[in-house]
Amino acid sequence: MKFSTLYIKTLRDDPQEAETVSHKLMIRAGLVKKISTGIYAYLPLGLKVLQHIMKAVREELNMIGCSELLLPALIPSDPWKKTGRWDLYGKEMFRLSDRTDRLFCLGPTHEEVVTEVVKNDIRSYRDLPLYVYQIQAKYRDELRPRFGIVRAKEFIMKDLYSFHADNDCLEKGYKKVFHAYEKIFERCSIKSIPVEADNGAIGGAYSHEFVAQTPIGETAYVICSSCGYAANLEAARSKVAICSSHEESKKEMSEMATPGKKTIEEVSTFLNQDPSKFLKTLCYRNQKGKKILAIVRGDDEVNEAKLKKIAGADIEWSHEDQELMGFVGPAGMSGVLIVADERTKKIINAICGANKVDAHFMNVNYERDWKAQLSGDIREVKDKDLCPECGKELSLSLGMELGHTFVLNDRYTKPLEVKFASVDGRMKTVLMGCYGIGISRMIAALIEQHHDEKGLTWPVQMAPYKVIVIPVNAESEEQTILAEKLSNELNSNGISNIWDDRNLSPGVKFKDAELIGFPYAVILGKCLEEGLAEIKVRKTGETFKIPLNDVIEKLKQWME
Amino acid sequence: MKFSTLYIKTLRDDPQEAETVSHKLMIRAGLVKKISTGIYAYLPLGLKVLQHIMKAVREELNMIGCSELLLPALIPSDPWKKTGRWDLYGKEMFRLSDRTDRLFCLGPTHEEVVTEVVKNDIRSYRDLPLYVYQIQAKYRDELRPRFGIVRAKEFIMKDLYSFHADNDCLEKGYKKVFHAYEKIFERCSIKSIPVEADNGAIGGAYSHEFVAQTPIGETAYVICSSCGYAANLEAARSKVAICSSHEESKKEMSEMATPGKKTIEEVSTFLNQDPSKFLKTLCYRNQKGKKILAIVRGDDEVNEAKLKKIAGADIEWSHEDQELMGFVGPAGMSGVLIVADERTKKIINAICGANKVDAHFMNVNYERDWKAQLSGDIREVKDKDLCPECGKELSLSLGMELGHTFVLNDRYTKPLEVKFASVDGRMKTVLMGCYGIGISRMIAALIEQHHDEKGLTWPVQMAPYKVIVIPVNAESEEQTILAEKLSNELNSNGISNIWDDRNLSPGVKFKDAELIGFPYAVILGKCLEEGLAEIKVRKTGETFKIPLNDVIEKLKQWME
Repeated sequence: MKFSTLYIKTLRDDPQEAETVSHKLMIRAGLVKKISTGIYAYLPLGLKVLQHIMKAVREELNMIGCSELLLPALIPSDPWKKTGRWDLYGKEMFRLSDRTDRLFCLGPTHEEVVTEVVKNDIRSYRDLPLYVYQIQAKYRDELRPRFGIVRAKEFIMKDLYSFHADNDCLEKGYKKVFHAYEKIFERCSIKSIPVEADNGAIGGAYSHEFVAQTPIGETAYVICSSCGYAANLEAARSKVAICSSHEESKKEMSEMATPGKKTIEEVSTFLNQDPSKFLKTLCYRNQKGKKILAIVRGDDEVNEAKLKKIAGADIEWSHEDQELMGFVGPAGMSGVLIVADERTKKIINAICGANKVDAHFMNVNYERDWKAQLSGDIREVKDKDLCPECGKELSLSLGMELGHTFVLNDRYTKPLEVKFASVDGRMKTVLMGCYGIGISRMIAALIEQHHDEKGLTWPVQMAPYKVIVIPVNAESEEQTILAEKLSNELNSNGISNIWDDRNLSPGVKFKDAELIGFPYAVILGKCLEEGLAEIKVRKTGETFKIPLNDVIEKLKQWME
Repeated sequence: MKFSTLYIKTLRDDPQEAETVSHKLMIRAGLVKKISTGIYAYLPLGLKVLQHIMKAVREELNMIGCSELLLPALIPSDPWKKTGRWDLYGKEMFRLSDRTDRLFCLGPTHEEVVTEVVKNDIRSYRDLPLYVYQIQAKYRDELRPRFGIVRAKEFIMKDLYSFHADNDCLEKGYKKVFHAYEKIFERCSIKSIPVEADNGAIGGAYSHEFVAQTPIGETAYVICSSCGYAANLEAARSKVAICSSHEESKKEMSEMATPGKKTIEEVSTFLNQDPSKFLKTLCYRNQKGKKILAIVRGDDEVNEAKLKKIAGADIEWSHEDQELMGFVGPAGMSGVLIVADERTKKIINAICGANKVDAHFMNVNYERDWKAQLSGDIREVKDKDLCPECGKELSLSLGMELGHTFVLNDRYTKPLEVKFASVDGRMKTVLMGCYGIGISRMIAALIEQHHDEKGLTWPVQMAPYKVIVIPVNAESEEQTILAEKLSNELNSNGISNIWDDRNLSPGVKFKDAELIGFPYAVILGKCLEEGLAEIKVRKTGETFKIPLNDVIEKLKQWME
């Protein structure tokens, strides 16, 4: 196919709207175009990469016995109400009414719909296990769309759902999908690692995230290079020393003026006390308006996912309770729900806000001066914390979440009443797993991992086209004829390619070829006189002069 | 692949919700499942057929130089406001707001979005022509969803848009796409014909519909078997005798009591007058509330598409003006817009409602007793009307609209200001065409044209799987091993298949195979003793005994 026929347009300069490498390159190389905040069009080159990704996903999932189907994106509210998620999902769910005022949402995920679909088809244990998946646009009204297509309002997802008769089968199925995911990312040449994760709004028992190692991710995770333990921060645990001041004796609680000192740093400097002595106190509220204080040590941070696990999924950072910011503390507080990180209970003679401006309490002690209704691990694991499994040092990294696998158990099948007749004839509730891959986001991960200063350096199997044929002199009839002929021959050999028929300088053509990242450029220029073509390998920059007749064989060899 | 692994479930009985053959069979054979009125899930077998259709569409369009892209379905209102369609589209458009109260719609079509996307990439005549298309879910809040997936609220469409420097190029492009459409339907084994059509809400200059010959369509069209003229009723013209009563002399207008006689039939019988003497009068209103009377001859019907072309696209049948129904007429009417079919102006001594209950006017004559502000062809063409091209008889048929091609000219490029530098350097407005295919609906057309009393009879290239291998005795180890082996061999030969491993009676398996419509069933039963397999051809019902080792070769031969 001729370059000029296709809809391929590159930009010379970085677009202003983009911050990250992948976002810039996707726009400059003409892979996507912004329609609105968090809403993108996939242009032909971008769509080709998407299609390669989808092919890999389909083949690997079909191979393990999954059936592809296609659910609607426009979903009636009824099943969401049955599982309670119509209310739980909040503002992230796009909602609308039809002409008869019936309520619908745009599917942010499809647990409810798929469960309703398979429900009447699962009658006995013979119908299980069942694995169904789809590849489809999903909709989430993100508060802060970011990084181009990475956090978008409309995006393409592969969502797989599995249904099982018992826990054993669910575990086996989960592992099977887990391995298929590893193969998918490997096939797509994306380096990623599975980490333990929190189930969040999806619910269920446990889950893993597949995180691509990219500089721009929003997923923070820790990994232990010694035993392999890996978890994202929402789920990460660590071994921590409980307290450094066991030996101190409890002193009498007193109030201290701390004028204008709000942050732990300011107060600890002012009082000359270590931050680890402080009860850092954050205000939340749940949907009913109940005030919640989360308490962590002054040198720790609250992890909201962990907090929600203990205090309820519906709590939110409280904007209304900020006037006392910096001076709030659990001592002497009543009528609020206090949730303490386990470590804070052991601090002897702690310091906390005195619940009035410009004052702190000193020598605050648990049980005597304050109590928590709930406690547990709500602190965020930090770089160099110790591994909960082997005790060696953890290291903290950022990455991009590409996949998420969940053991849901009966989170959906119970409220939606999906039952089957088991081998012994009794009716039991079906168990369920679900497994997502962010298809569109994978392009960004690919680019973050495969680019250089000149542009994209696609792995061969992921490139929009494998080869570009460039006649150096656009006005040479000989080169034009040869280019078209070679392009056709490549096609007959199943090698996707385009030839650059544009009446532009060779420099512009080479730059475009490098920016778009064709793995191989076949250059027809001066060496034609000696019967040679030049092949330039994008990734290495190497150039080879090859007899014209051997070009296709050579390319085939390399691609294997 | 094993039957039991996949998500394939058939129903023994016709579902109550379905009226048409294709709808019944799609549900019984497990191709789709209803989620809500007009909203369906495509189950694995249905999706496979969809994918075959999409493949054919993609290959034919890529072959003529179209580039595939993917636009969002969630579209901001801005471009729609620029073209005026935000208001024009009415209730059929699903609208919603995001968390910041910004307005969006779910794309019912994409002229606006695609035009905004390509706008800045079309700078000069060198960037033209440009052909881009997508395959995507579309959303229309249909007043009356019907026939399962045929008229649905969410459906899959291929929409192609072409951009051109001049009319010549647009015409050529239109023809190119037109021929590709003919090839697509032929490849998919769907009999269809292109007919002249009205542009409707899409606007532009002219258009064609591709109509599949099916008993359940909603598209009425006329065709002339003599000269080939074909048009849907919204666009159809015909040669009609202007009036039968030229010779009569005009009599004085008078009022006649017609108690309780409302319909043309009742009044014409009561007065003993031919229906062709009547001025049939229908009330409409436009969006501003202006009342419009449409006048056709008593033996004709108003065609609303034609009426809208003359009186404005925003008019609607008026529910508020029905109290005088049957007694309305143009004589003596003022303050309304009267739109007359050309034929009505020639009726001598016509009869019409007297604008009060139970009364009609007699001897009403044009110009003397009533006048029309607008007139033209607003009558619906009827079976056996005469062809406007050759004068032979037209015949009226019903069919299913599968495709629609439009010459849009500058309907969108002008309001959205898409200009290019022409060869002579002047800036000109780009011209545009658009071309749709109802992908999901094509399955219904396929089934309407390919089924029998036992179920589906897919053309080989459209079948979800080409072959089913049936071991007759589910408990025979020999048959099981052979079936699995044969299935694997078929796979290696690129022949899609499943083998029926279910522990069910042969009768049930055969029935399922026929219902689902595998083009070939390879039956492993008694003849195995003689080294033979039975191959049953679904379409013809023929059975062949073939040496086991020749099965694959034989199938390959037949499929060619």
